[in-house]
Amino acid sequence: MPLTIPPLSPQLDEPVYKTLANSIKQLASQLPPHTQLPSIRQIARDIGLSPATVVAALDVATEAGVIYKRRGSGCYIAPRPSVKQAPLDDEYLPRELPPDRIDFTLGTPSPEYFPVEDFKAAFNYVLDRDRGHAFSYPEPIGYLPLRLTIANQLDALRVTTEPGTIQITAGAQQAIALVAQTLVQPGDAVCIENPTYPGAVQVMQQLGAKLIPVPVGQHGPRPSDLVNLTRVRPKLFYTIPNFQNPTGGCYSVAARQRLLALARELNFYILEDDHVSELYYTGAKPRTLWQDAPDRVLYVKSFSKLLMPGLRLGFLVLPPQLLTAVSQAKQTADLGSPGLNQRVLDAYLRSDKWPEYQAFLRKTYHYRSQVLQAALQRHLGNAAAYYPLRGGMNAWLSFPRALDVEQLQQLCAQQGVLISPGSEFSVTGTSAKHCIRISIAATFPDKIEAGVQVLAECAERLL
Amino acid sequence: MPLTIPPLSPQLDEPVYKTLANSIKQLASQLPPHTQLPSIRQIARDIGLSPATVVAALDVATEAGVIYKRRGSGCYIAPRPSVKQAPLDDEYLPRELPPDRIDFTLGTPSPEYFPVEDFKAAFNYVLDRDRGHAFSYPEPIGYLPLRLTIANQLDALRVTTEPGTIQITAGAQQAIALVAQTLVQPGDAVCIENPTYPGAVQVMQQLGAKLIPVPVGQHGPRPSDLVNLTRVRPKLFYTIPNFQNPTGGCYSVAARQRLLALARELNFYILEDDHVSELYYTGAKPRTLWQDAPDRVLYVKSFSKLLMPGLRLGFLVLPPQLLTAVSQAKQTADLGSPGLNQRVLDAYLRSDKWPEYQAFLRKTYHYRSQVLQAALQRHLGNAAAYYPLRGGMNAWLSFPRALDVEQLQQLCAQQGVLISPGSEFSVTGTSAKHCIRISIAATFPDKIEAGVQVLAECAERLL
Repeated sequence: MPLTIPPLSPQLDEPVYKTLANSIKQLASQLPPHTQLPSIRQIARDIGLSPATVVAALDVATEAGVIYKRRGSGCYIAPRPSVKQAPLDDEYLPRELPPDRIDFTLGTPSPEYFPVEDFKAAFNYVLDRDRGHAFSYPEPIGYLPLRLTIANQLDALRVTTEPGTIQITAGAQQAIALVAQTLVQPGDAVCIENPTYPGAVQVMQQLGAKLIPVPVGQHGPRPSDLVNLTRVRPKLFYTIPNFQNPTGGCYSVAARQRLLALARELNFYILEDDHVSELYYTGAKPRTLWQDAPDRVLYVKSFSKLLMPGLRLGFLVLPPQLLTAVSQAKQTADLGSPGLNQRVLDAYLRSDKWPEYQAFLRKTYHYRSQVLQAALQRHLGNAAAYYPLRGGMNAWLSFPRALDVEQLQQLCAQQGVLISPGSEFSVTGTSAKHCIRISIAATFPDKIEAGVQVLAECAERLL
Repeated sequence: MPLTIPPLSPQLDEPVYKTLANSIKQLASQLPPHTQLPSIRQIARDIGLSPATVVAALDVATEAGVIYKRRGSGCYIAPRPSVKQAPLDDEYLPRELPPDRIDFTLGTPSPEYFPVEDFKAAFNYVLDRDRGHAFSYPEPIGYLPLRLTIANQLDALRVTTEPGTIQITAGAQQAIALVAQTLVQPGDAVCIENPTYPGAVQVMQQLGAKLIPVPVGQHGPRPSDLVNLTRVRPKLFYTIPNFQNPTGGCYSVAARQRLLALARELNFYILEDDHVSELYYTGAKPRTLWQDAPDRVLYVKSFSKLLMPGLRLGFLVLPPQLLTAVSQAKQTADLGSPGLNQRVLDAYLRSDKWPEYQAFLRKTYHYRSQVLQAALQRHLGNAAAYYPLRGGMNAWLSFPRALDVEQLQQLCAQQGVLISPGSEFSVTGTSAKHCIRISIAATFPDKIEAGVQVLAECAERLL
């Protein structure tokens, strides 16, 4: 008798392809491995769904390892995993995964921390206030009241800027893309810190820029590396001077002055990605480069790290002579960011909730960074070098060059601990091969301790 | 006694810069023209606001014509407008503006028509269901359930596509930009209809493409113009084959077949912008090019025209070999469209409200187009040529070449009637100089009649 998929009981609030995927999973547990499933069209006809829905359900079931596909032949029940089929070397056997894994790769808090209720209230407030206008075509430069609110809040940095110098963007990623599209032609030299945020590298590569990696450490670039720039005459210098991603380093006063002097001398712009200078743990908020040279520095800020990445909102503060060209690039890119999201963000930023949430985030991250620092000392000892954590959420660990970081990543992952290998942040793809980044953004203190212990044990095995 | 701005009474639900702008407006009505205002810093100090807020308020007041600025000297009270200062020629004196102007330039319904309550319900539903996950980093390719819903609804066209071929974009504008970034190198030839949607022209120009304008009329391009393409060997052909923007024309069956055959012969892709083929007034929904050649046609659809432009959502259906590259371009552009908006759109598209709204829009536009057609016949007679309105919201009027369309636009605007001159849609900027586009999307039937009457009177004066 040919196999048929039983009819579905539709589930409320669950897309039907998920219901079907679950039904297939249940079926698979009762059938011998390598049993062939009916064809997509057959299943679609049997249950009365579209072929597209069936395809999606089969994709989900395949990804879950419940079935497998053979090109041109169809889908089959997958064999249940058996410990006997694992590689022979005991060391590589997966341990029991902890109930929730420890994820040191995420750069934002876990979604449970997001101020969802406050935003829900803001959405309802804005929709009642602005009605359909919230869904009209947005202005490419951005919603004026939001730009004004941002300008007002930047006043806290004692740099007075006008809403007219602010361009709203879809996060820092689009800000970098718009600036590069405006300033960089194929073949132009662009300086970029090494290691750095990989999204910036992608933008420059797509535009055909000539990338000049500038090595950075705990205190920014070395004088000798900056002096070299006189030869390459860059168009643009992309930097994260405070609590750098991925290293956590901060430019020294001398490094700042040197870079700004060079920018004036060689007539290039600096694109300053100020991702988290608000998250300082000691002393005062660090200065931005932009405070010292607003004519030379294009300032980028995203609300992804400090608030919620799914908003896809950020902004640029630009020297006046660049604003028209960048706004034109924004219009060509997407006509403007969704007006409703901008209106809701504006309402939130003007409420008391925003400073409260920033303070909460700073306190939470500060405590976690102390826990991380203590755990690194306790478990790793001298196996890796790292900078003291003075702000932000990232620690950058340098292991001896003999250690294979990819193997370390695999070993850790088998025990439910996720880390980011340094090569992900390498401009050339070949540097930082013995380094890893650890982020405490989404990890609770007790998990930080446990995760570092696993990391130390895995590293020890490989050294 | 030096002038001071009186203290503000803060208004609920109004940004403070607006309150200040209103206060300045009131002050201006009581003072002699050309009185100097205090400096920005002085006003900021007097009222206890930031300079940025004051600057914004002054901008608003300047735009309203209440004050004027002199570079390096400050702001002054503007003279009240006086009829005596208008140009001497009686014909150019502004008439009393109608209480609400008649706007034939908008391509979307007025915001009062948007299904705001349905979306408010959907926002609350999604936020309660997904909580913080709605604000996490989105997937660059788009939210899977939304892609699945779109695939299911495309099934109605009898073209089965998988969610895996769908890329979510920030409207059609970004879809065009992503495709062009993926396929077009500087200097590559790109065919583009003339006249066409200006946003597409901007994308191609920004990339340094060589634009090949292809003239289109009521039934698409002429055979001779298509045959010419064999010489230019284009990479891409951008087209709106159904109810074209701005002309409203539809490709004939022969024009479709000719274009598809040529694309196969010369090995170029067709980028089909299907902006409103759902808004057909007679017979059945017109076929898309994509239905006949899914391997050759990149299909773009925006939710701006059919739903609400402020969502900034649309999608591409791509041949499988292009999907990875386009998704990578999307990631480099903005990491992905806001996840909450995608989730809410998905919930709305799966509800009964979506087909109801589409039916409502079609009925409304159909009736308006009939009113427009009748009004054009009644008032314009043979002064302009135009195609019969078979779908969409645009009518394209060709006047005798002697008529100066810019003057026509000005004359109409003085009487509160806004029209789009044809040159806005011209690829070369020089063609379509004697044409105008009229859109009925945001205009009530009685206004359509009144607006066309004004248009006819103005045209008569100029001919």
